[in-house]
Amino acid sequence: MGQLLDGKQLANIRAEVLQKQVLTLKMAGIQPQFCVINIGNDPSSKIYLKTKKRRADQIGIKQKLFQLPSNVTQKNLLELIDRLNNDKSVNGIMIQLPVPKQIILNEALAAIDPNKDVDCLTPANVGRLWQGDHFVEPATAHGILALLDHYHISLKGKNAVIIGRSSIVGKPLAALMLERDATVSILHLKTKNLAEYTKRADILVSATGHPKLVKANMIKKNAVIIDVGISRFNGKTVGDVDFEQVAPIASFITPVPGGIGPLTVESLMEQVVQLTRRNNGKQ
Amino acid sequence: MGQLLDGKQLANIRAEVLQKQVLTLKMAGIQPQFCVINIGNDPSSKIYLKTKKRRADQIGIKQKLFQLPSNVTQKNLLELIDRLNNDKSVNGIMIQLPVPKQIILNEALAAIDPNKDVDCLTPANVGRLWQGDHFVEPATAHGILALLDHYHISLKGKNAVIIGRSSIVGKPLAALMLERDATVSILHLKTKNLAEYTKRADILVSATGHPKLVKANMIKKNAVIIDVGISRFNGKTVGDVDFEQVAPIASFITPVPGGIGPLTVESLMEQVVQLTRRNNGKQ
Repeated sequence: MGQLLDGKQLANIRAEVLQKQVLTLKMAGIQPQFCVINIGNDPSSKIYLKTKKRRADQIGIKQKLFQLPSNVTQKNLLELIDRLNNDKSVNGIMIQLPVPKQIILNEALAAIDPNKDVDCLTPANVGRLWQGDHFVEPATAHGILALLDHYHISLKGKNAVIIGRSSIVGKPLAALMLERDATVSILHLKTKNLAEYTKRADILVSATGHPKLVKANMIKKNAVIIDVGISRFNGKTVGDVDFEQVAPIASFITPVPGGIGPLTVESLMEQVVQLTRRNNGKQ
Repeated sequence: MGQLLDGKQLANIRAEVLQKQVLTLKMAGIQPQFCVINIGNDPSSKIYLKTKKRRADQIGIKQKLFQLPSNVTQKNLLELIDRLNNDKSVNGIMIQLPVPKQIILNEALAAIDPNKDVDCLTPANVGRLWQGDHFVEPATAHGILALLDHYHISLKGKNAVIIGRSSIVGKPLAALMLERDATVSILHLKTKNLAEYTKRADILVSATGHPKLVKANMIKKNAVIIDVGISRFNGKTVGDVDFEQVAPIASFITPVPGGIGPLTVESLMEQVVQLTRRNNGKQ
């Protein structure tokens, strides 16, 4: 039976450290504050927003919600972003995904000041990441590396396979794992035979949202399994990995829930604090 | 025996098209011009500069060389970049690589106006590329895709393996191949067993500069072989691939010289023209 990679516990450990850093900032008169722009009424978004708010409160970060109607125009969204860019009390800005169809997401993301881009989704910060400059890191990828480090799992020379090529998880994680000297393969919906790749993975990351996509016959003995997927299946919250089947074969495995989820939220707060420090001339 | 992917021929075909586009621009009073900043006396750089100049002349693009001494300071380099950024007659700027050790390359690259960044090396343009926005494309990756398209070789669902993780070739090529629905693996010096990956590649790209790195026993029958490497070996210009061994097994293969080299230079000119059009309000 593979050892559990306890993301929840690590998130709590890191949150305590962060709480102290925030206290120091506050004593210098600096209040970390980030703004979430939420458009419409996506039910998953509501849950994520609550989870973020809870963690932000605990750490001492101010999270301000800007709730926009589902029929908001691109122009109005860009005006709000512009206003937040120019508001000195705001250290971070993020757009909660998904957004409605009338919104040109790439344009909206590019409008965010890179100095306030907590999600690392502005072109400038995506480019920096691929060039090895960690100005800000995407929360999920950052959380995954923190978890691997915590359990002393090295990436050097390892065969790392990522299922999912999203801008939020798959692509930035590939950049960070490559930088750590892993050989990186990026798989996706159009990949013909997932197992052909996953069976050889030393470290397998799945980020698709397809319940029970990863089965026992798709993984190598003693592989490290990182499950980023979150979906509802038979009334339960499950990941991409068929945990019961896969756990006995893996050397390490993340649970869902309690794995990458809490780390993502906590890592986001780390980015807010990092941007706050930088925006206030503290490195 | 695999069919030759004739990069030289395709470069000439595309150069003719480009020549006509430049003529149209000139008739509208617009002269495409790009500036190359060369630092020091790297002998390979000299050859590349000459090759570029020849192609630019043929197409009707003005290439201006700024030769800096090998001990130039970062400050002086940044001043030159700033001057070229502000010169309206300049449509493209590139720094010829390699640069001497005292130069902080990432900082210098980031100083280039993204609107004049012909090499697609500013953070903003690297980020755009990973987000599917082809504002400008890195010349080698652009040339490779043009060559595959010319020979009707699809990437969709294919196992594409890239040896080399440079910012110039490996990484941007991964972005573009992923966008074309290939499954992409990025290999490098720290990869433990190259053959384990290359043997399964439908399309194999090698960009390392190690002569005869890719041998017959490392490739799959009927694979497509793209050789980006250029080095001197026993007095001859050779690529990464042991051509004599590998050609009989491949379905398609690029020669060296006459493969990706000429296409890279021609693709660079395409980027200059694209930026010139955009800088003059023509899409």
